[in-house]
Amino acid sequence: MHEPPVKPIEWCGDEVKIIDQRRLPGEEHILSLRTTGEFEEAIKTLAVRGAPLIGIAAAMGVAVASRRLVSSTWAEFETSLRESIQVLHGTRPTASNLFWALKRMEKILEDTTHDESPEACSRALVKEALGIYEEDLEMGIKIGKAGAGLIRDGFSILTHCNAGGLATSGFGTALAPVYWAFNKGVQLKVYADETRPLLQGARLTAWELARAGIDVTVICDSAAHIMLSRAKIDLVLVGADRITLSGDFANKIGTRGVAMSAHAAGVPFYVAAPSSTIDFDLEKGAQIPIEERDALEVTHVGGVRITPPGVAAYNPAFDVTPAEYVSGFITEKGLINPPYLENLASIRSDDPQMH
Amino acid sequence: MHEPPVKPIEWCGDEVKIIDQRRLPGEEHILSLRTTGEFEEAIKTLAVRGAPLIGIAAAMGVAVASRRLVSSTWAEFETSLRESIQVLHGTRPTASNLFWALKRMEKILEDTTHDESPEACSRALVKEALGIYEEDLEMGIKIGKAGAGLIRDGFSILTHCNAGGLATSGFGTALAPVYWAFNKGVQLKVYADETRPLLQGARLTAWELARAGIDVTVICDSAAHIMLSRAKIDLVLVGADRITLSGDFANKIGTRGVAMSAHAAGVPFYVAAPSSTIDFDLEKGAQIPIEERDALEVTHVGGVRITPPGVAAYNPAFDVTPAEYVSGFITEKGLINPPYLENLASIRSDDPQMH
Repeated sequence: MHEPPVKPIEWCGDEVKIIDQRRLPGEEHILSLRTTGEFEEAIKTLAVRGAPLIGIAAAMGVAVASRRLVSSTWAEFETSLRESIQVLHGTRPTASNLFWALKRMEKILEDTTHDESPEACSRALVKEALGIYEEDLEMGIKIGKAGAGLIRDGFSILTHCNAGGLATSGFGTALAPVYWAFNKGVQLKVYADETRPLLQGARLTAWELARAGIDVTVICDSAAHIMLSRAKIDLVLVGADRITLSGDFANKIGTRGVAMSAHAAGVPFYVAAPSSTIDFDLEKGAQIPIEERDALEVTHVGGVRITPPGVAAYNPAFDVTPAEYVSGFITEKGLINPPYLENLASIRSDDPQMH
Repeated sequence: MHEPPVKPIEWCGDEVKIIDQRRLPGEEHILSLRTTGEFEEAIKTLAVRGAPLIGIAAAMGVAVASRRLVSSTWAEFETSLRESIQVLHGTRPTASNLFWALKRMEKILEDTTHDESPEACSRALVKEALGIYEEDLEMGIKIGKAGAGLIRDGFSILTHCNAGGLATSGFGTALAPVYWAFNKGVQLKVYADETRPLLQGARLTAWELARAGIDVTVICDSAAHIMLSRAKIDLVLVGADRITLSGDFANKIGTRGVAMSAHAAGVPFYVAAPSSTIDFDLEKGAQIPIEERDALEVTHVGGVRITPPGVAAYNPAFDVTPAEYVSGFITEKGLINPPYLENLASIRSDDPQMH
């Protein structure tokens, strides 16, 4: 499996093409992004979403911006790019890959300042953005291999939100082991939590798995508990938006409840994520800021109002799952088991880039 | 508070008028039910729903059917009514109030067999159905009083699904203490889980609370976990469709997850229900049959398809919450605390009708 099941983002030189995920599954619409404002809009409104893909898109956004500025003075080039980085930094508050990717781009800018050559710096920025993209493809393959062994013939796997190809460069995180096992002929079935409010499970996970020929069934988020308690699920695989050193992690609202139910039912619960998702500056989940999104995402589904007019809605986008409910993390560096404070920290010392 | 906040069902002699709950909150449409087929359809499609109200509607359905048959022979009368009871018995499998109410109607039929007078039996059936209705109103008041003491000034209360006036004769079960406390001037705020797939929280709980002037905010079902874990909720109140002697109980999918999260966060979790919800024949929650409803309820919201065409959906309607997560039951006979096997059973010995 060296071709990803889906290509949610593509570098095209002066523009970046994305699958507009707001329109799935009804329509596979390709959107071209050129300006920083277009990237900002696409990330904020979830045309591109998923922690790893947000990082890739932001890096490509900086790279595309740099291409337009190659004829500028160095001062203009640097000021403008720093503005772009700042704008993209402010698009989503929870996913750590966004900040990690932008920090890498910023470092390139700083490392090339002494040359004062927009042309050379832009080449380096493009190379870095494509590098982040390529590394993510490679990570998807590694996560797939590392996690596939958890899936045995006949397994029913529950997943929440979309941590699939569409959330990454193409192989996914939580779904990478599923694709890997499936391609090796393992019989499996996936239950996808629909994932209110934006229905990433019903729309995106169902779409990409069905497209790959994998047996997928959508359930309401609340149905996960009866399914786990009545032995209909063998394994839970989810992604993560931010992992702290203690192993507490942030992911789409509802993940915490699924993890507690899996734990109570004795069903293994694994979190698949590239190591760029680990926030080495945070020890505990309570420190993770939680994005609050527009109440309209709750009050309306597909343009149809579901609540009485005038009634308020509250829309936190993420929750934090305590490490005690996590059976292990699946990363591109292999499976990470408890104790997390020790074992997650050891990843950092492996990798000078992480410091 | 002797007038209920809402009147979801009304006995009108040869017909029963209900608020069509499928059309709320968009439209307050009154539906007339006359034939057993109309009652069957209304219960199956959730035009009337909520365990206590299903019981009342079924009893009234038998009573209305009997009125049409007063000029029949006794044999015709009895056969036809037994058919009606059987049809209504098959409408919903989980709520125990339905079977309890129909058993009471069947007992009237049996007790009056010796007279072979359709007229006299019908009068007794009407009286019994209205009795069930009146008892439920009384129960709502008693549950309200029994539970109101749990609510202190400034409390934020989380509820799941609709166990409000619309689920009963008018005062509700889980919401009865809320109405009672509110009417006594207690400052409170309710968070209503939207309750996928049929959105009884977003549509019905929000509608009836807002109508009564109570501060209500709708959240996605999955948001309950972050809210409970970050101390935004002081008390959880839910209803029940069936309570077993051990204290395990069935309620709308998602209740189990909310209960686990509340337990982990140290937030009191109370179940409000009339004692007719207790199934004295079942000891454990694992024995409760779980209704599986049409996948279309998951794949479509407000007529709009949310999943890719051809992708399957699975739709269990209830889950079972273990007694260990229940702080107590609020019934018309007062608060019931652990140990439940002892304390729930003692209700039965109080009441000869329950045997």
